[in-house]
Amino acid sequence: MEVPLSTSATPFPPGSPAADPQAVVDLLGVLAYGELTAFHRLADDARHAPTIADKAALGAMAVAEFGHFERLNARLLELGADPEAAMRPFIPALDGFHDKTSPADWFESLVKAYVGDGIASDFYRAMADYVDADTKTLVVEVLADTGHAGFAVERVRAAIAADAKLGGRLALWGRRLLGEALAQAQRVAAERDTLTPLFTGGPDRPGADLVELARIFNQLTEAHTRRMAALGLSA
Amino acid sequence: MEVPLSTSATPFPPGSPAADPQAVVDLLGVLAYGELTAFHRLADDARHAPTIADKAALGAMAVAEFGHFERLNARLLELGADPEAAMRPFIPALDGFHDKTSPADWFESLVKAYVGDGIASDFYRAMADYVDADTKTLVVEVLADTGHAGFAVERVRAAIAADAKLGGRLALWGRRLLGEALAQAQRVAAERDTLTPLFTGGPDRPGADLVELARIFNQLTEAHTRRMAALGLSA
Repeated sequence: MEVPLSTSATPFPPGSPAADPQAVVDLLGVLAYGELTAFHRLADDARHAPTIADKAALGAMAVAEFGHFERLNARLLELGADPEAAMRPFIPALDGFHDKTSPADWFESLVKAYVGDGIASDFYRAMADYVDADTKTLVVEVLADTGHAGFAVERVRAAIAADAKLGGRLALWGRRLLGEALAQAQRVAAERDTLTPLFTGGPDRPGADLVELARIFNQLTEAHTRRMAALGLSA
Repeated sequence: MEVPLSTSATPFPPGSPAADPQAVVDLLGVLAYGELTAFHRLADDARHAPTIADKAALGAMAVAEFGHFERLNARLLELGADPEAAMRPFIPALDGFHDKTSPADWFESLVKAYVGDGIASDFYRAMADYVDADTKTLVVEVLADTGHAGFAVERVRAAIAADAKLGGRLALWGRRLLGEALAQAQRVAAERDTLTPLFTGGPDRPGADLVELARIFNQLTEAHTRRMAALGLSA
């Protein structure tokens, strides 16, 4: 998986607010472990799928996530970082999120695939605005939708049209996913102070961290409400 | 995933003992569902991995299995079969095997990846001797080792060298895997009488089924004993 060192990349332009190489390694690390975990969980959730075709569709999404993991891993090596060390700090938060949001059935799996990945993608994309152009391009490519959207929306809408009670249960489930995601994101932000400047713009704005983070979290919540509406669920 | 009909393939040469197209579809169906299931379970088992590198290694194996599933699925379409219908009859046996052999820890996962897949591969390879050349080539390619062997053997041997009790527990686990695999294989053979002639050579040898199957099962058991020895375990 080792990739030769890039000669054209300028990962940390001097004076940039993201000039802290550790912040870039942290961002790639949390994202890489997030993709690896998403791969394992999607592949396992597919067990609930009602048909083999649905199992295969969720499997193909999982395989796409693994491809993203491999690209992020390669970028960490390219930057001279140890991928394992870069990912390790984020294991408790990401494993904690998945352990607390283990889907009970197929529809909970679909809502989690769509809504959970959506929240995570918004979060990482917000951070990517503050890193070098090469890293940002990679992050945005890796976060591109792997087919969850159309697949999940279509199936969930059809199911709740036929069963109103299911809609109520899945609306509660969506709220729980958001709550757990925000709790774990705050845990990451609190424990890794290298990541906080990615939001706050760096040492020139000390003390703004919590306010700035609150703003980001509000945006995440609004995007979540739009996704729930797309599924036909109240947020 | 649809693939244009092959013009060069001669799937069912007249007079061949495998001239029954349903037997070929059944073989591809059980193998395709087996690969899909192996993908989901390997990806999930990786949760037990002690390091991220081990998680990624098991993940890469799972992704390879998914690639095999896609090739078998494409071959079923090429033969004009409905992949979902071809796989459906084998869901109870394969899900039953995995439900009854859910690994409790990382080393049980490794032994299952190596020993369980080994038994299944021997079984499918024995059947592939009796189908057309194109199908046989595909089956043999798909069953090629995806890296389980070296990876599992190295880690298990190191662990039992350091912990003799673990060796005893894993030896029992290996016997349970064999027992469950043979029970499910007999279930498949008994329920799908199209597959039995693949072993017995066809209608010219009526009544030999059970004897022939017993011989195959003896061979599977011997190969299993060799694999357990490679792991440093008594079979």
